[in-house]
This record gives sequence, structure tokens and C-alpha cells, in this order.
Amino acid sequence: MPRLKRVVLDRLIRYYRYLAEVAGDRSPSTITSSRIGAALDVDPSQVRKDFGAVGLVGMSRVGYDACEACRAIRTAMGFDRPYTGILVGAGKLGGAILTSPELDRYGLRIVAAFDRDPFKVGRHIEGLTILPLRGLTSYVVEHQIRLAILTIPSAAAQPLADLLVSCGVEAIWNFTPARVEVPRGVLVRNQRLTTGLGEIAYHLRAPRRAVRSRDYATAVDSSESS
Amino acid sequence: MPRLKRVVLDRLIRYYRYLAEVAGDRSPSTITSSRIGAALDVDPSQVRKDFGAVGLVGMSRVGYDACEACRAIRTAMGFDRPYTGILVGAGKLGGAILTSPELDRYGLRIVAAFDRDPFKVGRHIEGLTILPLRGLTSYVVEHQIRLAILTIPSAAAQPLADLLVSCGVEAIWNFTPARVEVPRGVLVRNQRLTTGLGEIAYHLRAPRRAVRSRDYATAVDSSESS
Repeated sequence: MPRLKRVVLDRLIRYYRYLAEVAGDRSPSTITSSRIGAALDVDPSQVRKDFGAVGLVGMSRVGYDACEACRAIRTAMGFDRPYTGILVGAGKLGGAILTSPELDRYGLRIVAAFDRDPFKVGRHIEGLTILPLRGLTSYVVEHQIRLAILTIPSAAAQPLADLLVSCGVEAIWNFTPARVEVPRGVLVRNQRLTTGLGEIAYHLRAPRRAVRSRDYATAVDSSESS
Repeated sequence: MPRLKRVVLDRLIRYYRYLAEVAGDRSPSTITSSRIGAALDVDPSQVRKDFGAVGLVGMSRVGYDACEACRAIRTAMGFDRPYTGILVGAGKLGGAILTSPELDRYGLRIVAAFDRDPFKVGRHIEGLTILPLRGLTSYVVEHQIRLAILTIPSAAAQPLADLLVSCGVEAIWNFTPARVEVPRGVLVRNQRLTTGLGEIAYHLRAPRRAVRSRDYATAVDSSESS
């Protein structure tokens, strides 16, 4: 499959997430391009076109088998190819990430957790023994780690990213508010816990009673990145 | 200030977040529309226009005072008006949200945490005593809670949202993968921990290249960038 444009990639990821949820709900199930389009605010003809690009053909009036569509995207996008990552910063957020069922869905296996706090080292986080930061580089090289998840204080983000990239890490999943610079070819994906807060605060800007005025659009879907 | 279009709202929130970080770095500092534009991938003339809409006028060659710009957006957007919220689901993710410095930046004060697990009730999470779910509705009504943060299992999201909205909650910050339906006038903001994972998996879809295992210090050369 040729390298996808960003907008196509984003749409396929959204279909995949939606289908994984639908397929999980009740199986076997079929789903139409209209329903997918309505749920994700994409034109149904665009859904069919995107699905066609990953080799999916829908049945007239019936649509697509949700599990099959999910698998087709999974394979086309390479989500079925497992890769290993590490967690740097073994705090609450790190723990929450480790428990996410989504990791497996995208082929990610987190194999180690590191923390600079000597009181955390040797303890466990979601089944992983927390390792000291001084062992980070040798671990990354030895285990050919491809992804590092940063859940550390902002000030540590750039120095740690530099270190990790120099050891061969190919992607940084950055949960800190810091901006991280990396060489060309390395991916940084910023992920913020609180991107929705501005919109919520804006919605609630008027005093309590006045806001109930029914003039604001309802459900707003997650804007993806930071 | 009239109700903002979604795109304008999004841009102002991004400026605000960026300025809060810049202003926090070193103070006092000035910042040009060009620098803001470059950092956020927005045309500098658009930055100046948006800033003008919230009453900000830049100085020639110097730009804007970062703190002043931050304050102007904060006031224009209503982020300076405090409101109260509750956490429903006192797990790791809930704990991570409670520790975020961003809450205060948008006027949110979380005043209570609820959990259905009787073993958690009475314990503490980031300074809050965990309350039993059976006390939820009376608490929400009594304290006129405006926002509920859902960090609970997906299956509980819709029933709890229904309950909370019936008690007067005006915004749901939904961290579950479930889709939540609410009446018009109530805001649902979906926030996912793992939206970036698809892009990362796609970036790493090709096998790790052998050359990297020999020359870690070399910048990785790939057609993909962040």
C-alpha cells in the first residue's frame, strides 16, 4: 500500500477505532457506509472510497462486515505488526496508559517502565517492574525499542527524547506539554490529556442559568491532537 | 464577545495554551505573531487578526507581551470564571487528570470524586475523599455541579451521563471510548488517551531496519516526519 496522505490516514484510523467498538459490541454484525459516515461525520461515498482503497467491497443494502472491515484496515495500515515500546515516567498517567485496551489493538507491547524516583524503582506498575533511569539507554539498545512514551515532567522531555533517539528509538509519544524536537525520520506524536478543557470552559463561560439556553451544538467529538 | 465559530475557538485555545507555556518559561517576555504562527502552523496575519478580535494590539517589531496576550484570551474566552466539576471514576486516569496544572488555567475546580467500588470509597485521591456513587445525584444538585469527568468503564458512560444531566450537569468530559448522547444544550467533549497510537503504528509499520542497530547516533532517515 502506498504511503497515505495525512487526511486519509486520519480517516482510516477513525474508521478503525469506530469499527473496533462496533465489532466489540455484538458480533457478527454488518454496518453500512451511511451509518459509519453519520457517526464520524464523513460523506458515505468517501467511506466507500476509503474502504475500497483497503480492498473492502460492501454488499448492497447490507454494507460491510464490521469485523472483516476492521481486520482489513488493521492489515493495510500495519496495525497487525507487533512492536515494542517503553514507558518513561511511571506515574498515574503512565499507569492509565498501560491499562488501555487500545495498545494491543495497534500492535504495541510495552515491555518496560522507567522512573528517576529511587523510591519507585523496584516497585510494580501494571505488571512491570519499574527500572531506574540509568539503565534506560542500554535497555533501549539491547531490546531494540522503537517507541518511547514520555509521561515525565516537561523539563525532562527534550533531553530524554535526545537520548532515546540516539539509542535508536523511532517514535516518541509525548504526553508532556513540552515541544520536542527530533531528527527527520523520527515521529513525535504529542498527546495531551486536557485538550478538551478550553472548549468546555468556553461552553460554561456564562453563569449557570444562562448557559441552559439550548443554543449550543451538542456532542462534539475529540479533536485528535494537541 | 459574540459566540465564536469553531475554528476561531480552536485557534484561540491553541494560542492560549502556547502562550501559557511561553509565559511560564521566562517572564516578562514578548512574542511576535510570526513566532506564534510558526509554532502553531497558523498564518501570522491570522494570528494578528485573532488577537485583534480579543482586543490585543502588537507593537511593531516587538510583538505582544506573552502574559498580557494570555490574560486577554483568558478573559475574552471566560477562562477566568471559575466553575466546579466532579470526577466520576477514581482510578489511575482520574488521578492523572486531577494533578494536571491545566485545570486551574481554565477555571475548573474539581470538588469531589466518586467511585462505585466500595473498597475505594473513603480513600483519598489527590486530596479528595472518594465518595460512593449512591451519593452522586444529591451532591450534584446540592453543589450545583456544572461539569462531570467520566473515567469509568464504557458501559456505565451513558446511564451515568443521563443521570448527571438530569441533575443539571451542563458538560460531560468523556474519557471513555463510549459515545454519549445528551440533550441539546449540554456539551459532550470526548477525550481519548490513545488517539495518537494509530499514527505511531502506521509510522512503525515497516520493520526496524538493521542499519539502526549498528549506528544509533545517526539521525534516522525515513520519508516520514512529524
